[in-house]
Amino acid sequence: MAFKITKELLENVTLYIENGNNNALSGLFTEMHHADIAEILDEITFDEAVYIIKLLDSETTSEVLMDVDDDVREKILKNLSAKEIAEEIDELDTDDAADIIAELSEERQEAVMSEIEDEEHAKDIVDLLRYDEDSAGGLMAKELVKVNENWTVLKCVKEMRAQAEEVTRVHSIYVVDDSGKLKGRLSLKDLLIASTRTPISEVYIPKVDFVKVNDEAEDVANIMRKYDLEAIPVVDELGILVGRITIDDIVDVIKEEAEKDYQLAAGLVEDVEADDSILQLTRARLPWLFLGLLGGIGAAGIMQGFENLIGTDPTLFYFTPLIAAMAGNVGVQSSAIIVQGLANDDVTGSINTRLVKEMLLAALNGIILALFLFLTVFLWKDDFNTALAISVSLVLVIIVAGLIGTFIPLFLDKRGIDPAIATGPFITTSNDIFGILIYFWIAKLIIGM
Amino acid sequence: MAFKITKELLENVTLYIENGNNNALSGLFTEMHHADIAEILDEITFDEAVYIIKLLDSETTSEVLMDVDDDVREKILKNLSAKEIAEEIDELDTDDAADIIAELSEERQEAVMSEIEDEEHAKDIVDLLRYDEDSAGGLMAKELVKVNENWTVLKCVKEMRAQAEEVTRVHSIYVVDDSGKLKGRLSLKDLLIASTRTPISEVYIPKVDFVKVNDEAEDVANIMRKYDLEAIPVVDELGILVGRITIDDIVDVIKEEAEKDYQLAAGLVEDVEADDSILQLTRARLPWLFLGLLGGIGAAGIMQGFENLIGTDPTLFYFTPLIAAMAGNVGVQSSAIIVQGLANDDVTGSINTRLVKEMLLAALNGIILALFLFLTVFLWKDDFNTALAISVSLVLVIIVAGLIGTFIPLFLDKRGIDPAIATGPFITTSNDIFGILIYFWIAKLIIGM
Repeated sequence: MAFKITKELLENVTLYIENGNNNALSGLFTEMHHADIAEILDEITFDEAVYIIKLLDSETTSEVLMDVDDDVREKILKNLSAKEIAEEIDELDTDDAADIIAELSEERQEAVMSEIEDEEHAKDIVDLLRYDEDSAGGLMAKELVKVNENWTVLKCVKEMRAQAEEVTRVHSIYVVDDSGKLKGRLSLKDLLIASTRTPISEVYIPKVDFVKVNDEAEDVANIMRKYDLEAIPVVDELGILVGRITIDDIVDVIKEEAEKDYQLAAGLVEDVEADDSILQLTRARLPWLFLGLLGGIGAAGIMQGFENLIGTDPTLFYFTPLIAAMAGNVGVQSSAIIVQGLANDDVTGSINTRLVKEMLLAALNGIILALFLFLTVFLWKDDFNTALAISVSLVLVIIVAGLIGTFIPLFLDKRGIDPAIATGPFITTSNDIFGILIYFWIAKLIIGM
Repeated sequence: MAFKITKELLENVTLYIENGNNNALSGLFTEMHHADIAEILDEITFDEAVYIIKLLDSETTSEVLMDVDDDVREKILKNLSAKEIAEEIDELDTDDAADIIAELSEERQEAVMSEIEDEEHAKDIVDLLRYDEDSAGGLMAKELVKVNENWTVLKCVKEMRAQAEEVTRVHSIYVVDDSGKLKGRLSLKDLLIASTRTPISEVYIPKVDFVKVNDEAEDVANIMRKYDLEAIPVVDELGILVGRITIDDIVDVIKEEAEKDYQLAAGLVEDVEADDSILQLTRARLPWLFLGLLGGIGAAGIMQGFENLIGTDPTLFYFTPLIAAMAGNVGVQSSAIIVQGLANDDVTGSINTRLVKEMLLAALNGIILALFLFLTVFLWKDDFNTALAISVSLVLVIIVAGLIGTFIPLFLDKRGIDPAIATGPFITTSNDIFGILIYFWIAKLIIGM
């Protein structure tokens, strides 16, 4: 059942567009899922994509627009009139509609909003635009099924049928009081099993998980994942039910958060894909490389400061890449563990406890590695002092690197800064410099003995 | 609404257990979500955790067992009798039940299975144990709601009520023919709106997404995410409906895949958490560090080979950490982009095209960085040849590192090996060595001119 884009398919699409064979195009896309159409649009030229968007009906294209790559969507929207965009918006759920509107310039936003026919829909979208995109309010949709606790099941079912027409997927039926405050929920299953004569107040479940409009998207994701929820209602400051968030949006949040952390750890400062242009990729990659370059120049400066050792003990200089690599590796490992623990909310206890544990761990690893290194250098160079100097400083470098890798993300997190920015470039570079400084300092001490 | 473990709460739990105050314990846990109870069990001692598991009823504890950390569960299961485990299993859906059974030794598996009262349930579990845990079969549950295409809606609703009692969440009603082959689906919403007299064959949707039992978990996740599915039916080789996978399991797959890639990139060879023991953390961290150590020793050997340069041009040796760091950084960046692209299935086109693009990109980045480095070294050392040697080799090192970082994950992927293993340690270490070799080789050429 997996859909695969073939070269032949793309050639056909291009050919049909060239020949203006609209019937063939419509026929081709009619049976296709919007996510598959979006994949095709990502592969063809931008003019061809606009042609197809204008050709197909807005019920299909609105969903396609949500699925194409950001840069493709931006270009397509630029080529649609305010009225054409409004037609797409009319077909979308409020959360998706608000996401599209938010991507437009302020002028265009107004122009598009004035073209939207359904006033209720427009009001809901304007309401959603108020919220930060990384908050519960920014994720939620206004479409939901709610019933009043004072209704009978019979009235409830009638009202629900009307409401359900507008809601793509019914997960839960939310129960509110006369003022709109969230009271509880009815599960569809209960409804399936319950007799139609039961009053709502008797069948609803008063215990219901919810989030507040200003809660962070990542926290919403953690709650929904922890409690295996497929939808969660959102309430405002007064407890009034204002929207709901569905699991499909949360899946994207989880995926994006994890990818962002991974990219930051790999030293990519922008969200890039393999298919992005060389310029975009350079913008994402160059900042870290430049930081690494500065770190390397700093390390060279430190080594220059120990240049009188180069005549007496050149071996020390041969091991600087080893020291720098170990300092970087240990730092990346310890920071990755902390960053992941913080993201999953299971780093508890004080910073001091963490640091003591990391010190013991790093010391254990360091001593094992240093013993091996000592034997290697001693057997190779037959020089006890040099071998000792290199191995002892390796232990110290590993301990310091582990402490830095543990402390920096914890410190950033306490300050409210995303600790993920620390994992890659920052820790590696600072550990390189500290590592080499400690290394030569200790080595000089031991060799000077 | 967020649940937070407090010190006070943990102290109370410990105190109640010490005093054997079972009523207070039951009262405390009655209203609590199983995921919250699991969090508490992760924090208290193992004996206390077993005490609570034995105290609470198996309807609660079975779900708690699914939510505790793997190592806590392993210890608890060891302390339960086969009969006690069977009682937990009886309460669980088949997918969770099979996961627990799979964690037991073969002997215990048989002992537990023979204690399970519901024979149908036991048969389903045995059936599920056949599948690889990373396949659709390993993720699916046997519980689902299915109706025959030849039924009337009236019969369908009656049958569904009976089936729905056993299914935690009803997502879709699957329609099968007399032989059990998947024909299509009925949405609950359609059912809510449709009149009860309509025949099934007229209302069901014949187009339904499905996966096959042997499809990989990651592919299932990609399909469900792409098409925004909340459940997907699983069919066997003959097209017979055998189970269904729900989005909550897929959320875990997505999260785990992303975390695994991140951990591998950070050089952690086992799935560890900040709270794991120092021994577990050492087991996860030491292998990469050891690889890094070998790489460093290799680099030292290479530098020793160029030792005659140390008298004439010591500056070259000061820049080895810079060269090694840049080679590592570029390799990590380019491999991360490829690994993420492969995971999201959007790396298309030939390996050669990718390599040419990476070469251009690396050359561009390399030349920008080399110009800066050239000026720095020239102004610092006032030595044109050395500055030129270091900068020119930096460009070449960056290009080679980028090519290695791009090629290795693509090559591993073609061979059917998870490319994520390449990103961290492997690429960093090999790039360090290649980088330093190229650096000295080029430098010697230029300086010898």
